[in-house]
Amino acid sequence: MGKDKEIGIVKTEYFTFANPPDEFKPESGGAIGPVTLAYETYGSLNSEKSNAILVGHSFSGDAHAAGFHEGDKSPGWWNDMIGPGKALDTNKYFVICSNVLGGCKGSTGPSSINPKTGAPYALDFPTITIADMVKAQKYLIDYLGIKKLLCAVGGSMGGMQVLQWVSSYPKHVHSAIPIATALKHSPQQIAFDEVGRQAVMADTAWNEGNYYGKAIPERGLAVARMIGHITYMSDRSMEEKFGRKLKAKDQKFKFMADFEVEGYLRYRGDSFVKRFDANSYLYITKAMDYLDLSGERLIPKDKKVDIKFLVLAFKSDWLYPLYQSQDIVRILKTRGQDATYCEINSTYGHDAFLLEIEEETHLIKHFLSKVSKSYGS
Amino acid sequence: MGKDKEIGIVKTEYFTFANPPDEFKPESGGAIGPVTLAYETYGSLNSEKSNAILVGHSFSGDAHAAGFHEGDKSPGWWNDMIGPGKALDTNKYFVICSNVLGGCKGSTGPSSINPKTGAPYALDFPTITIADMVKAQKYLIDYLGIKKLLCAVGGSMGGMQVLQWVSSYPKHVHSAIPIATALKHSPQQIAFDEVGRQAVMADTAWNEGNYYGKAIPERGLAVARMIGHITYMSDRSMEEKFGRKLKAKDQKFKFMADFEVEGYLRYRGDSFVKRFDANSYLYITKAMDYLDLSGERLIPKDKKVDIKFLVLAFKSDWLYPLYQSQDIVRILKTRGQDATYCEINSTYGHDAFLLEIEEETHLIKHFLSKVSKSYGS
Repeated sequence: MGKDKEIGIVKTEYFTFANPPDEFKPESGGAIGPVTLAYETYGSLNSEKSNAILVGHSFSGDAHAAGFHEGDKSPGWWNDMIGPGKALDTNKYFVICSNVLGGCKGSTGPSSINPKTGAPYALDFPTITIADMVKAQKYLIDYLGIKKLLCAVGGSMGGMQVLQWVSSYPKHVHSAIPIATALKHSPQQIAFDEVGRQAVMADTAWNEGNYYGKAIPERGLAVARMIGHITYMSDRSMEEKFGRKLKAKDQKFKFMADFEVEGYLRYRGDSFVKRFDANSYLYITKAMDYLDLSGERLIPKDKKVDIKFLVLAFKSDWLYPLYQSQDIVRILKTRGQDATYCEINSTYGHDAFLLEIEEETHLIKHFLSKVSKSYGS
Repeated sequence: MGKDKEIGIVKTEYFTFANPPDEFKPESGGAIGPVTLAYETYGSLNSEKSNAILVGHSFSGDAHAAGFHEGDKSPGWWNDMIGPGKALDTNKYFVICSNVLGGCKGSTGPSSINPKTGAPYALDFPTITIADMVKAQKYLIDYLGIKKLLCAVGGSMGGMQVLQWVSSYPKHVHSAIPIATALKHSPQQIAFDEVGRQAVMADTAWNEGNYYGKAIPERGLAVARMIGHITYMSDRSMEEKFGRKLKAKDQKFKFMADFEVEGYLRYRGDSFVKRFDANSYLYITKAMDYLDLSGERLIPKDKKVDIKFLVLAFKSDWLYPLYQSQDIVRILKTRGQDATYCEINSTYGHDAFLLEIEEETHLIKHFLSKVSKSYGS
């Protein structure tokens, strides 16, 4: 790829709202403030402010979706999709990505300082929902002067945010691309999240959330992340990547990693704990589990909604199986929305939304070009 | 069910072998002895000793497959399948089930006393394999005076033992029923086992295996078991059992169980730690992960083997998917064995081998009646 296809160096910015005496009131009750969102933007907002695309990140993602931070060797998490000439073409569109409320990458979350106590919130942080995350994003969009998003797009938990935008602010979003996501978690998805939470809380270092400034619950959090990684891949993609290959090892004691897949999982678990807050893990997975936009909740019967949808799902994704995307499409169709549904052939499992760049680019580029023409009409 | 269809009260028996100066030598090296196997038998061995059926238990099972222990309200784990007139008809057959080597239900394992030290083996227990488990079973079968089993049958890890009997002692088994099992674990199966092991070892109480007589690693072991339970059920059976029903609760602090599925998993995890040894968890899952009977290993080309097979698999079993049973059948067919393959419709997932009693009874009863006639021929 030539340099002209890259965004280059980017910087995370910070937007703070709900400053006293104002407060941010989560769905579950309580109040916090001020609230900060870390965000990045790529491309330029046009004078009509009609070219803004909001990208929602998945569970462990952050505001750094594209380009490079000064000195970094790795780009943002969706760099293959965002940039000049790419699916989210920064020559045409103004792309925004913010770290979710409850996160730990610059936005206010349980690891942030509670101004009332001068110490981290820990479990005093209120229970948050996907609707709360999206409400915080709406503050940011208002601040940027954008009345109506050209598009909201995202995979996995990012797709949940997309659907929540439709539900919460249908007049403020022209089109939506929910990818590899669901209206609500199935008991199996809740169960995987719950086991991850239990792994975190089983670590004595977790200490009911009060570990800041002390040893962190790194072993529990690593186990939680390992479970996640299994669910992100398919049986087949694991087979292709690892097979039953044995790991080169110095067998110092029993139960070290024998197979490559074991070493991989341990590596991913260990590296995760360096970049993620254990309490954010608990709050954000709960937010996903609480989401339920089934039935009347996505688009109430009495509401006049006219949004264009592109719903994407991946055939080998067993964490967010096809039927969950089909359920989204079914509801959209019964509500008379303009919805296109594509099932993408992939062996990557849930991770496909980060990896099937060519297919996604093809579908999304075309869709955005079409919806750009009808914006404001 | 009438009382005439029940076995009634049963008692676990104990068989000890590899008494000094003899030793049991596991595949991985080392030596232990004496070795005890806990076992139960149901029905009577006929004078020709031609009606013996060996049942292999699954990962967390034990020797108590059928009937009731004095004072117990729950019967053995496969009571629906074993008894007068049942699939394994104790009016006709002599049924044997033993706790595996490495286990914690009466057979020698890491929690047993090492006669050399007078303390539990803990991690001084040698690495064991499915072949070692089966070798120990062979000692028991010899002791019972049985030259050739009429049948070896078992689901999941029990099925692995069945396949290992075929590989290790093809002359000593007339027929075999591997159920919901595999020739070898896929990387996904290894990954789930490994996360369970990591959860156990992440618990500081695990203490590199030296927790006997002290606090046990109950939180880690409970998390490991919760992961297991997710993989034993199907997405659909979880949906049918729990949906998104909320649990009645007294929300004392955040991150208590909200959904019924969470409460169920916590309950299953907590009850497991009362009955299972954490080190056995590590040893037995590793034994499963090491198994590899693919290629020439099940039936070597130069060996004359003539065993009758009934291979059973369940459509919603995603832990041991259909293709793994199909792989077994493919190898059997290319080695000229008499193999019948049945895919049973079930929504129960991997647990189906414990639950689809009617279908299993129908297939197994017929198969056993047929192979009884050809025994010795």
